[in-house]
Amino acid sequence: MDNEQDISSNAVTDHELGFRLTMTDEQTAARLGRLVTQRGEIQLPAFMPVGTQASVKSLSPDDVARTGSEILLANTYHLMLRPGVDLIREAGGLHRFMAWPRPILTDSGGFQVYSLAHRRKVTESGVEFRSHLDGSKHQLTPERAIDLQLGFGSDVIMPLDDVVGFDSDAPIQDVAMERTHRWLNRAIEHFGERVEVDRNGDRPLLFGIAQGGFDGQRRRESARRVSEVPVDGCSIGGLSVGEPKALMLEMLEHSMSELSDDRPRYLMGVGSPEDLWQSVALGVDMFDCVHPTRVARRGALFTFDGRVNVTSARFRRHFDPVDPLCDCETCQTFSAAYLHHLFHAHELLAYRLATIHNLRFMQRLMSAIRTSIESGTFKIEMQTFLNRYRVADVDRAAEQKQKWAIARGLPSS
Amino acid sequence: MDNEQDISSNAVTDHELGFRLTMTDEQTAARLGRLVTQRGEIQLPAFMPVGTQASVKSLSPDDVARTGSEILLANTYHLMLRPGVDLIREAGGLHRFMAWPRPILTDSGGFQVYSLAHRRKVTESGVEFRSHLDGSKHQLTPERAIDLQLGFGSDVIMPLDDVVGFDSDAPIQDVAMERTHRWLNRAIEHFGERVEVDRNGDRPLLFGIAQGGFDGQRRRESARRVSEVPVDGCSIGGLSVGEPKALMLEMLEHSMSELSDDRPRYLMGVGSPEDLWQSVALGVDMFDCVHPTRVARRGALFTFDGRVNVTSARFRRHFDPVDPLCDCETCQTFSAAYLHHLFHAHELLAYRLATIHNLRFMQRLMSAIRTSIESGTFKIEMQTFLNRYRVADVDRAAEQKQKWAIARGLPSS
Repeated sequence: MDNEQDISSNAVTDHELGFRLTMTDEQTAARLGRLVTQRGEIQLPAFMPVGTQASVKSLSPDDVARTGSEILLANTYHLMLRPGVDLIREAGGLHRFMAWPRPILTDSGGFQVYSLAHRRKVTESGVEFRSHLDGSKHQLTPERAIDLQLGFGSDVIMPLDDVVGFDSDAPIQDVAMERTHRWLNRAIEHFGERVEVDRNGDRPLLFGIAQGGFDGQRRRESARRVSEVPVDGCSIGGLSVGEPKALMLEMLEHSMSELSDDRPRYLMGVGSPEDLWQSVALGVDMFDCVHPTRVARRGALFTFDGRVNVTSARFRRHFDPVDPLCDCETCQTFSAAYLHHLFHAHELLAYRLATIHNLRFMQRLMSAIRTSIESGTFKIEMQTFLNRYRVADVDRAAEQKQKWAIARGLPSS
Repeated sequence: MDNEQDISSNAVTDHELGFRLTMTDEQTAARLGRLVTQRGEIQLPAFMPVGTQASVKSLSPDDVARTGSEILLANTYHLMLRPGVDLIREAGGLHRFMAWPRPILTDSGGFQVYSLAHRRKVTESGVEFRSHLDGSKHQLTPERAIDLQLGFGSDVIMPLDDVVGFDSDAPIQDVAMERTHRWLNRAIEHFGERVEVDRNGDRPLLFGIAQGGFDGQRRRESARRVSEVPVDGCSIGGLSVGEPKALMLEMLEHSMSELSDDRPRYLMGVGSPEDLWQSVALGVDMFDCVHPTRVARRGALFTFDGRVNVTSARFRRHFDPVDPLCDCETCQTFSAAYLHHLFHAHELLAYRLATIHNLRFMQRLMSAIRTSIESGTFKIEMQTFLNRYRVADVDRAAEQKQKWAIARGLPSS
């Protein structure tokens, strides 16, 4: 692909919406671009913080914006159960309800139904389940998943996919993949019927999801099929569920090999700082992950040397910021010793200050990635980052193990 | 007392520090003034939010400042145990540690030793106790209480008092009162030896505490004695511990009758909105209370019609702010329905948004009180407020009962 080529989305084309490729790195598959949504554009590659229940845990929307985030993700499964789509629609939509005027991407709920809900039953029509909150009975179909997200007023919508255990037998994987693509076709058709294009030609964007478990051929097949249907972007699902990093990257490479270049590629649920560099190198444009916010609430803060835990004894008298070079509000205002104290005193402010730092770190990382692509130094800067950044630790390993267990349908302790 | 009289503190006089009386209401004993501290002045009457462990629960210092608070209170008992005075001193003092550059008032720790600590033993020397956190042994003497607060860098310092159950026998009350005043003399002497006056003539202020339980004569006696010693202000302790409102006001009136006019009067641990008006009418200048922040975290929000609980079903679809006339960041940005959702979803943001609202309400209240004194309409505006404001409810009653039980040394649950 040529550099500095500006490609319009060949999906449901209209207005200025969709993906714009600015340039592609010469040494890797890294790409620089932007995604134009009905609520403004986002710079790519982008990291999206997760606001599961219409709130990025512990932060106000202003806090999130000040970290540099241009878009956030919310979870359809959680919102459909509480407060429900009718209430959000009455409130004037999700953006107004949570006072976040910028773009929002929502997932379809498929993964949470698989990992959280009770008594899940999949049929060709869709999936029936009981709420993990109160046991109430609900149904999610490809059509209903679209309606819910249109009801929220999402800017980027995901289709329902059939999620199965990632070490399921090959026949089960095949059935799930075939169903996922039949459901995608139903989603596209329903989206076409229901979506409202406004006077400016604006509308939400609809992505497809490529699955395929941990089989390279199935990954390529699924990605190829998503590339053949008229969607605004391609998501890669089912990765970073606890498998070894090398396997994740290998599977990602299979998926990427068949995805068309003219649409944004969104790697769902990834990831940690090292994952972002390596996935961008393979051509990924968008990420989301609860990791930075979740570990923040346990006191784990990102630095360019790796994660540090501010609750550990060595920070008790550390009167400098956690990262003296960080420009986040936390590091600009408070010492590591104060954060250490807040965590040990169980003060609520601890969770917010740590979350601000980690989300700002992710945005500084994405900014560094974009700048390096632009200046042609992406590959060497990735190496520099990976050489310096101390990956993983006991916490992370435990978290991975838990996700892996969930993905296999095992008790996750 | 004449209006618009400007009186310098006749205590340890120096520089511009201390109390300035601007005017006294003609129909009540309400006073308008300011307190000049080494870190700036505060408008009186003033309400101080409580930052128990060097944090106003769920808020950043910026949040607190934006509610209009000019001063906050921190608890010596909590800070001496965690993180400890040495660490706070090494951090550059409490203001720098918690990034709050404005005035801080600290208590002496006496009340928390009484209500929280284990195995408390009072002697003439001071009080020995074990930490409620880890059982470690500590001592607090009148001298040590001063040293701790000087170590924190407090702007307004309280002396150690001998706190006993408020329904103790008269002889026990008498012993405690006599000891409190002997301890106050030791505190004044020690403060005089240890306090450092800087080049500008600045130094912390030292208040005395008038006690006296629920006996009018003892209240007057204790207040008279505080008025006779060289301190910068007079605190009234031991009230609002669960007793009926009428009894609280009756005892307060006894205390006030003997306090000198030329010093600020600080009613410790009070109070709810209705308490503030009624206590200002008796001549009180300063207040602190955990009530507004504590009930906020349970979803109870103040309005000029009384408290409402935003978790109740009637707010589920209430898409206007909790108080449409409120200028706080919460009401300016979010609907009651969103707060309702956050509380039910156990989102951390709920506690912050509710706390911002309640602290802003308290500051709006104090501002209304000051303006009404200035314009000579205090009494009628107090009546208007009290007629409109729906006092107390089940929660409040339970809280009062608990405080009362603690004060009597009874099981509090």
